[in-house]
Amino acid sequence: MSMQARSKFLKFAVTLVLAVFTSAAAAHEPLPSWNDGATRSAIVDFVKRVTDENSPDFVPVAERIATFDNDGTLWTEHPMYTQLVFAIDRVKALAPQHPEWKTTQPFQAVLDNDLGALAAAGEKGLIELVMASHAGMSTADFEAIVTAWFETARHPRFKRPYTELAYQPMLELLAYLRENGFKTYITSGGGIEFMRPMTEAVYGIPPEQVIGSSIKTEYQMQDGKPVLMRLPEIDFIDDKTGKPVGINRFIGRRPIASFGNSDGDRQMLEWTAAGSGARLMVLVLHDDAGREYAYGPANGLPETHFGTFTPSLMQEAQNSGWVVISMKDDWKQIFPPEK
Amino acid sequence: MSMQARSKFLKFAVTLVLAVFTSAAAAHEPLPSWNDGATRSAIVDFVKRVTDENSPDFVPVAERIATFDNDGTLWTEHPMYTQLVFAIDRVKALAPQHPEWKTTQPFQAVLDNDLGALAAAGEKGLIELVMASHAGMSTADFEAIVTAWFETARHPRFKRPYTELAYQPMLELLAYLRENGFKTYITSGGGIEFMRPMTEAVYGIPPEQVIGSSIKTEYQMQDGKPVLMRLPEIDFIDDKTGKPVGINRFIGRRPIASFGNSDGDRQMLEWTAAGSGARLMVLVLHDDAGREYAYGPANGLPETHFGTFTPSLMQEAQNSGWVVISMKDDWKQIFPPEK
Repeated sequence: MSMQARSKFLKFAVTLVLAVFTSAAAAHEPLPSWNDGATRSAIVDFVKRVTDENSPDFVPVAERIATFDNDGTLWTEHPMYTQLVFAIDRVKALAPQHPEWKTTQPFQAVLDNDLGALAAAGEKGLIELVMASHAGMSTADFEAIVTAWFETARHPRFKRPYTELAYQPMLELLAYLRENGFKTYITSGGGIEFMRPMTEAVYGIPPEQVIGSSIKTEYQMQDGKPVLMRLPEIDFIDDKTGKPVGINRFIGRRPIASFGNSDGDRQMLEWTAAGSGARLMVLVLHDDAGREYAYGPANGLPETHFGTFTPSLMQEAQNSGWVVISMKDDWKQIFPPEK
Repeated sequence: MSMQARSKFLKFAVTLVLAVFTSAAAAHEPLPSWNDGATRSAIVDFVKRVTDENSPDFVPVAERIATFDNDGTLWTEHPMYTQLVFAIDRVKALAPQHPEWKTTQPFQAVLDNDLGALAAAGEKGLIELVMASHAGMSTADFEAIVTAWFETARHPRFKRPYTELAYQPMLELLAYLRENGFKTYITSGGGIEFMRPMTEAVYGIPPEQVIGSSIKTEYQMQDGKPVLMRLPEIDFIDDKTGKPVGINRFIGRRPIASFGNSDGDRQMLEWTAAGSGARLMVLVLHDDAGREYAYGPANGLPETHFGTFTPSLMQEAQNSGWVVISMKDDWKQIFPPEK
């Protein structure tokens, strides 16, 4: 075939493929686990506006960045953060090598299952737990430990692996955004290396699109092979005002859509909203004690230690036109079917 | 068209498109600005091995990560780093607001064009220059300053914008790797926010694939609008042992190919090499005083303050089978044609 004929033929074939794909896509309704209503419409309308080349709100593919909080936005964070369960399990597993933990807080609290004493240890205690359980090994060893833990750990209420407690409607939303040219990122207060071993399989999000809190690592030569050792020192906390900082550092572009569920996501949504052009800011409200959990204290829901959604955040959402998802009203189902 | 007929037709059309693309790709020889020889062959052979599904060295697309140093690897770093020229220009522009600089080092050295005094100020002096010129404004303002500077600044020898002093053979290499499913990253000791305004246009590398050194930023509300303010405090130095740390933090995967030109890239190449499976480690040797610059001190080339390539690094490259590019022998041309 001549170059010219080939080029002409190529154009023809591409047009055919696009035509078939487009008609196939139109046949499939997005977000099947979402109830019809204002929430679903706000999301679908936004995606249509930014992807339609004839819309004044059109956004080029390269700038279609969407950022998602993880705990409480993409998966369950109750009765406590999954990573805290992991830290507690690790402390228990490591306890035989640390007899002093039997009489030292916050370790004693963990070993005695004394949640009151654990809560009393506060943030300082939590950081000590994380350092003891997350540092002192290479990044490769930590990845292996996390991967093995996810395989055996089960949620106390739902009796399923934590990786199966991602929200089905949010999985559909991630896929829908990617089908529409979005790059989807996680921006979590959780540990970046705790999440990366599972995000590709659970969310279809590759490690390079996961932003989170981190501890320092150090390049060392061990037996002539380089390793990155995890040090017991905080590097970065990707929460509250840290979320825009992390987004700017890792992505270098402002998201046009962002999704959270708590006061820890407030600044990320503000940062997203402050860009020019069409924007979508969304918060998940946990108001479904029957199928998942109910906590706020916004809307009179119970107080919580994990994923606080204050009345002040609800006020800002209402004043600013942010979308608030009611799990109870907007989602047909919460979790994917059992495997 | 029925679903079944559509699906059958779709398969047929896709096959046709693939066939035409494949034959078009075969017709075009990669890396035209590279001389035939061992260097070019090593690169092309590696790419063929990792992209051929029938090769034992095949690597899935998601894992085809290639990391590139910037200064001296992708663009010229002599007579000094481009970012240092920028810092000097900024100090001169800001001098009227800082009368004290006339009598304070290292600023006095800059204002007097006294390179000896500037060199004597050492690393501490350089950091002071960077802080004075790179901090104290929002990230948006800094981006605007950098963008404007790139438009007017000219290289003292080549009299061209710095953005035109990327190496033509490396631009072809970046494109060739991307055509073969690689994700190309910059991993530079230079400032992440100094590079991002130009990497997409110059290298085809989007901001989220640029890793570099950084100063801290802080989320602030100014007149009800959120901004990220650049603070005069080092956050991360992405050089030497920092490069594997930065790669792990930003990408979370080990590169299968990496490219550098100096001792600052040594640990990145070691980290790349230490993975399992096929690997490609490449160093650019500046041995072309006629068309660009010549410096080492490897191979008896002159000493330099910018982009040192020591005999010890050359020894490691030879022992480990790393590829060393001779600019003089391997490259047909250095820079892209003038615009």
